[in-house]
Amino acid sequence: MFAAAALLVLTAAAAEAKPQGESMSRPFRIVVHGGVGAIRPENRTPEQMAAYRKDLTEAVRAGQQILAKGGAALDAVEAAVRVLEDSPHFNAGKGAVFTADGKNELDASIMNGTTGAAGAVAGVTRIKNPISLARLVMEKSPHVLLISEGAEAFAKEQGVEWVDPSYFHTERRWKELQEIKEKEKQKKTSDAREADDIYGTVGAVALDQAGHLAAATSTGGMTNKRHGRVGDSPIIGAGTYADDKTCAVSGTGKGEYFIRTVAAHELCTLVGYKSMSVEQAADAVVARITDLGGDGGVIVVDPAGRIALRFNTPAMCRGWSEPDGGIVVQIDRE
Amino acid sequence: MFAAAALLVLTAAAAEAKPQGESMSRPFRIVVHGGVGAIRPENRTPEQMAAYRKDLTEAVRAGQQILAKGGAALDAVEAAVRVLEDSPHFNAGKGAVFTADGKNELDASIMNGTTGAAGAVAGVTRIKNPISLARLVMEKSPHVLLISEGAEAFAKEQGVEWVDPSYFHTERRWKELQEIKEKEKQKKTSDAREADDIYGTVGAVALDQAGHLAAATSTGGMTNKRHGRVGDSPIIGAGTYADDKTCAVSGTGKGEYFIRTVAAHELCTLVGYKSMSVEQAADAVVARITDLGGDGGVIVVDPAGRIALRFNTPAMCRGWSEPDGGIVVQIDRE
Repeated sequence: MFAAAALLVLTAAAAEAKPQGESMSRPFRIVVHGGVGAIRPENRTPEQMAAYRKDLTEAVRAGQQILAKGGAALDAVEAAVRVLEDSPHFNAGKGAVFTADGKNELDASIMNGTTGAAGAVAGVTRIKNPISLARLVMEKSPHVLLISEGAEAFAKEQGVEWVDPSYFHTERRWKELQEIKEKEKQKKTSDAREADDIYGTVGAVALDQAGHLAAATSTGGMTNKRHGRVGDSPIIGAGTYADDKTCAVSGTGKGEYFIRTVAAHELCTLVGYKSMSVEQAADAVVARITDLGGDGGVIVVDPAGRIALRFNTPAMCRGWSEPDGGIVVQIDRE
Repeated sequence: MFAAAALLVLTAAAAEAKPQGESMSRPFRIVVHGGVGAIRPENRTPEQMAAYRKDLTEAVRAGQQILAKGGAALDAVEAAVRVLEDSPHFNAGKGAVFTADGKNELDASIMNGTTGAAGAVAGVTRIKNPISLARLVMEKSPHVLLISEGAEAFAKEQGVEWVDPSYFHTERRWKELQEIKEKEKQKKTSDAREADDIYGTVGAVALDQAGHLAAATSTGGMTNKRHGRVGDSPIIGAGTYADDKTCAVSGTGKGEYFIRTVAAHELCTLVGYKSMSVEQAADAVVARITDLGGDGGVIVVDPAGRIALRFNTPAMCRGWSEPDGGIVVQIDRE
């Protein structure tokens, strides 16, 4: 049964696994995403595109610096996601979209691929960096998932940075909500729907020099979503999964499809049980989401430092570190 | 790669798959659980044990009657779980345990193995049958998971049966909370912990005559849990998963371990990708939870009507329908 498996692994083994970078350090990698969708023509100005690229680069660099010094994958993904949460350009933290009620409800999750420990929060409204709260849930509580006021009460105990809900008010996201509400009126539909722009989540996956993996995902949800709707980002297995034996995954897109297909965990099992490469497994998971009618993308890294970035939308904001220390950032299909 | 797989399937194939029961109906099965743990000596009276058995039998019968008439697996699991939610003896619905704040917060989820559709609610406090609300989320909303007030606002729109929170107050569960709080004081620990009795969740999995699978899980959470803590029951992939191609699973136990291992989905992938029988896969998942230090159990049914019930605790309340129309109920290891 494992002959075919071994063959696949050999076929998939590639260049990037050799140790590079400063001194004799072992391979390390960080990959980030800032959501999928299609950049609207009015946002496709050189300034706006440069702003996306700058923040994606900074997110990769934040993780890369930690990994280069021998730091932990877990620290790297948290640091990278914090950069994207603090940016107004992505749908997480500062740039979170508005619910139908005109609020910002944030979700996040993080997982340690070595121990299988995980933490997540959903429906928080006053936490500047939900990813760091998710990490505290993992490390300082006996629980995995805390929601709403319960999550915020825990945040207060832990001394997490608190902001007024108005911190998450950005003019662009507010305008998107108004546009969608206007479209709804005309179409007489009440479905929550995505803005016709970059949406989804932000996330990061990393491999550190000790061979450990971690994954993190954070989101502001869907524009015009129903109050209390939770997507895949805080759901371990759906939006986030990490396992040192297979790979680390963060997903972005229409969360319901990621929950139903348990996308991140499914991807790890395709690598672990079907001996697929991370690229093959990422393709299979995105294909399944496409078949069900969903949009989205995934980023993946495995213990050899091989990476995959796959999506079925016109664009996915993304970036990664190269073994030689370079940083690559892409938005459209290339 | 599939030679070994085929062999395993042949080895695992067993007696129960032949069509039986009234007329020429195709095989159907329902399996239910009412939580894991260890029955306390003071609850081990003939009356109390008979009460557990009676409600488990009724739950199986409710599902069995639907399946015998050619009804859907989805209807069968919902009906069975409603019986257990209405019973004061299990930790779901009426019998829900208390949070540390002295409240009852309920979670539930349901999944259709044919379409991969799923619905879930978490943190509801006034819904008599959370499993039916989860089904409405699946069928009447574009979302999968709704939490807290958002879930209750949706329930109101849908005209779901509403109860005063006092409906969930049972003397036994209140006493359990006080006992745990007393133990906490003595030990100076603030961890939420399980009562030393039957805890966890209730759940059901079913195969209908059309060959379709469904799974459903409902819970009152953990005694003395932190407000806002969500376990595995509303998490598709963790506590509940169904896929007509592999199997349907409902889990019960310490939810955090089921979330971290994505237990229900993992079990389906072991059947689908590793060609394990449902018993082998159930053993593997329970072993993994045991290795991590968790308690729990799973119930499983596959498209041929083979079932598995596995747990690592002294007891799991459980029952199932036999192909000949009989109903078996067990509590302790037998």
